[in-house]
Amino acid sequence: MQRMDQAQARGRLAAAVEEARAGLAEGGIPIGAALYGPDGTLLGRGRNRRVQDDDPSMHAETAAFRAAGRQRSYRGTTMVTTLSPCWYCSGLVRQFGIGRVVIGEASTFHGGHDWLAEHGVEIVLLDDPGCVEMMRDFVKNNPALWNEDIGE
Amino acid sequence: MQRMDQAQARGRLAAAVEEARAGLAEGGIPIGAALYGPDGTLLGRGRNRRVQDDDPSMHAETAAFRAAGRQRSYRGTTMVTTLSPCWYCSGLVRQFGIGRVVIGEASTFHGGHDWLAEHGVEIVLLDDPGCVEMMRDFVKNNPALWNEDIGE
Repeated sequence: MQRMDQAQARGRLAAAVEEARAGLAEGGIPIGAALYGPDGTLLGRGRNRRVQDDDPSMHAETAAFRAAGRQRSYRGTTMVTTLSPCWYCSGLVRQFGIGRVVIGEASTFHGGHDWLAEHGVEIVLLDDPGCVEMMRDFVKNNPALWNEDIGE
Repeated sequence: MQRMDQAQARGRLAAAVEEARAGLAEGGIPIGAALYGPDGTLLGRGRNRRVQDDDPSMHAETAAFRAAGRQRSYRGTTMVTTLSPCWYCSGLVRQFGIGRVVIGEASTFHGGHDWLAEHGVEIVLLDDPGCVEMMRDFVKNNPALWNEDIGE
């Protein structure tokens, strides 16, 4: 798999940001994700659904993975997420062999992406000001909900 | 949290085994799980639903976690599973601070439970002959489905 440059990765971030903003508008936790195939086809997209569905198992990455349906292989796929993936979502990436993760930002929350890099996953870490601002404002205004979502 | 002995852990395995057997009867992957509260209350139980719901995100542990609904904290909870948890489900346990994992068997599949132990999760590994036989037979008869479920 060829390494993805920052400009390409920024282009891929759009669908995940749309999901995050839609979640925020619904009163949910504003984290969005999208799973792309090796050829750049969008396989599935989703957002955190803890509030909307009362479902703690639907983190954004899990929701995008679920929306993509059953796939025989995840070789060469790219998970794009607005925020550094937590251990749950990092475990998903490692177990299913998703080859690359594009991350909107990791300054408001630092999940398992270093661990993924150690295990051969290509990490493209953006430092997207829009993603940072959205999360920073959300955490500031909803600390209890945010802590619930990350098990703290 | 007091350490759980093997006899107690065997007692907790029953609901997870029931889930696994129900999954097998439905034509699904026979892995079951149950999440217990600190006082031994059953919070949720579930089984792998890849085949039944065409849902790759519902591994047994994730399904039990989902069935338990939103919880403010997982401190002192115990996840019981018929099979060593994969990275996805191990990540779930670590992220949400589930304190203990009871595992039916880890001989047909060795997931992330050593990693969990390194990070302070109490692991009670049983070597349940019924669990081993159920998984061994399933994997032997359904290798493609099993490989799909673990991303291989």
